[in-house]
Amino acid sequence: MPRLATDDPDALFGLAHDGERPALARLLSLVERGGAPARAVSRLSYPRSGAAATIGITGAPGAGKSTLTSALLGALRSEGARVAVLAIDPSSPFTGGAILGDRVRMGEHALDDGVFIRSMATRGHLGGLALATPEAVRLLDAVGFPWIVIETVGVGQVEVEVAGAADTRVVVLNPGWGDAVQANKAGLMEIADVFVINKADRPGVAETRRDIEQMLELSGPTGPDGWRPPIVATVASTCDGVAELLASVRSHRAWLRGSGELDRRRAHRLDEELQRVLLARLLERVREVEAGGSYEALRAEVAARRLDPWTAAERLLAEG
Amino acid sequence: MPRLATDDPDALFGLAHDGERPALARLLSLVERGGAPARAVSRLSYPRSGAAATIGITGAPGAGKSTLTSALLGALRSEGARVAVLAIDPSSPFTGGAILGDRVRMGEHALDDGVFIRSMATRGHLGGLALATPEAVRLLDAVGFPWIVIETVGVGQVEVEVAGAADTRVVVLNPGWGDAVQANKAGLMEIADVFVINKADRPGVAETRRDIEQMLELSGPTGPDGWRPPIVATVASTCDGVAELLASVRSHRAWLRGSGELDRRRAHRLDEELQRVLLARLLERVREVEAGGSYEALRAEVAARRLDPWTAAERLLAEG
Repeated sequence: MPRLATDDPDALFGLAHDGERPALARLLSLVERGGAPARAVSRLSYPRSGAAATIGITGAPGAGKSTLTSALLGALRSEGARVAVLAIDPSSPFTGGAILGDRVRMGEHALDDGVFIRSMATRGHLGGLALATPEAVRLLDAVGFPWIVIETVGVGQVEVEVAGAADTRVVVLNPGWGDAVQANKAGLMEIADVFVINKADRPGVAETRRDIEQMLELSGPTGPDGWRPPIVATVASTCDGVAELLASVRSHRAWLRGSGELDRRRAHRLDEELQRVLLARLLERVREVEAGGSYEALRAEVAARRLDPWTAAERLLAEG
Repeated sequence: MPRLATDDPDALFGLAHDGERPALARLLSLVERGGAPARAVSRLSYPRSGAAATIGITGAPGAGKSTLTSALLGALRSEGARVAVLAIDPSSPFTGGAILGDRVRMGEHALDDGVFIRSMATRGHLGGLALATPEAVRLLDAVGFPWIVIETVGVGQVEVEVAGAADTRVVVLNPGWGDAVQANKAGLMEIADVFVINKADRPGVAETRRDIEQMLELSGPTGPDGWRPPIVATVASTCDGVAELLASVRSHRAWLRGSGELDRRRAHRLDEELQRVLLARLLERVREVEAGGSYEALRAEVAARRLDPWTAAERLLAEG
């Protein structure tokens, strides 16, 4: 592919916009790696993004998130919509592009031209996935995907933050006592816009539904303008309930737009992102400073107590 | 006190060095608050510090750390040595100077001119207590205290970091099953130079001693040049065992000096501190930038998608 003998973000962006998947994959690698090329991608995609519907899929390992994502892909594809999937794995040392582990389960969509699936790990991106994920989502948005699904692998603070990059957050539970309690502990109840009880062919669906409802009650009554997260039972492996899930996602999206909550949510995310970006840029400067030639010399001055740490820091930053 | 009608660090430092306690208290407040005055204090104390023996006292709440500190104070005072105590409470909204809660238990030393006791909280110091504590220790060192005891209130990451500002770290446990296991979980076993089993008039001393020894075994054999943390049983309220504790602290200090470990440890702490200071300075710049007039304007540009977050961050930092 001689056309890809470029790492120029502008050229790659044009190709990706025309549907060249290798160019899009290359751009996502740049986003993942961070630094100046990632910032160049950000400058290209930012003004062109904002139209896509973004869905975050999160929940405990083994809840069936990949199968559910695959089923959701099928439902969207049957309507002809193009869909991109970002599978986020903070613990993976591997990087994007590769079809890893669970990705295989989405194999049925691997040859579909309207589907783009990508795994993402941190790979040294300063600020990690919390920074890289919204950038990647905007890129997919900017090159023309109307639907973007962000699937997280585990449940932790990072996953909750990553899922927060989506407009509609789907929390996947399983039937049986305790799952909702665990989800609550993991901070998932607060971020859920739609609940899915997947593997609903197993016993315990009613109990899990009741647990979720009780926790929703505890979080207080929903106002006239509020959103009460619906609870959808699915069997992702047979696509049972997936149409209902998609309908719930659409209802939520309509509510987001109609209530003004979409703008509020995006403004809030933007503030958080701007803080993260500022911090990441500053951390980059710290690394640059430490890699610079003066660091060791000034460090020795501090060790000899000829210079205090603050003055040393001032001098290092003045040079940077 | 007209002599204290100054906040000039140079003048205050001279007074503190001459034994003026209100001047020392004022300087510690400046350290606590951070910013330019704290940096001025740092520049004064840094070249004049390094001679004091510093002891960190940490352990679970209720283990008797304050009583033990008070007993240790008594032992040192009976030898005529001047002692400063920094009581560190990350959770307290109160600030220094005040004799808070447990301080009252040290009341017997309150009127002793050779003892200086001070509580410290964060009070918005950027980088928090992990940054302010070594600065405060160096100040006390520089104005002439040969012994400095740093007592932490709880057990958490901050407490472990704060205790790390001392050359000799004393971990206080109580008799009974499980205490050593909890301490291990809290990361205290790794940092312990001396173990104290306080309230040793209660049952379970042998078991706790065995637990500690087992954990020390697990961490591997100690080399010919290494230090094996002694385990001292005390009843702080009656001063039983406190002389032995002080002897252990002195043995450890002699080992630190003789083995070259004191220099290695201080060099390591210095690297960590330099990193924190660099980051704190940069975070100060973020706050300055956010408080500046351009932040809201640029944020609005980003919200309107006319500017991407990275470019906005660049512009803000270029102004700062």
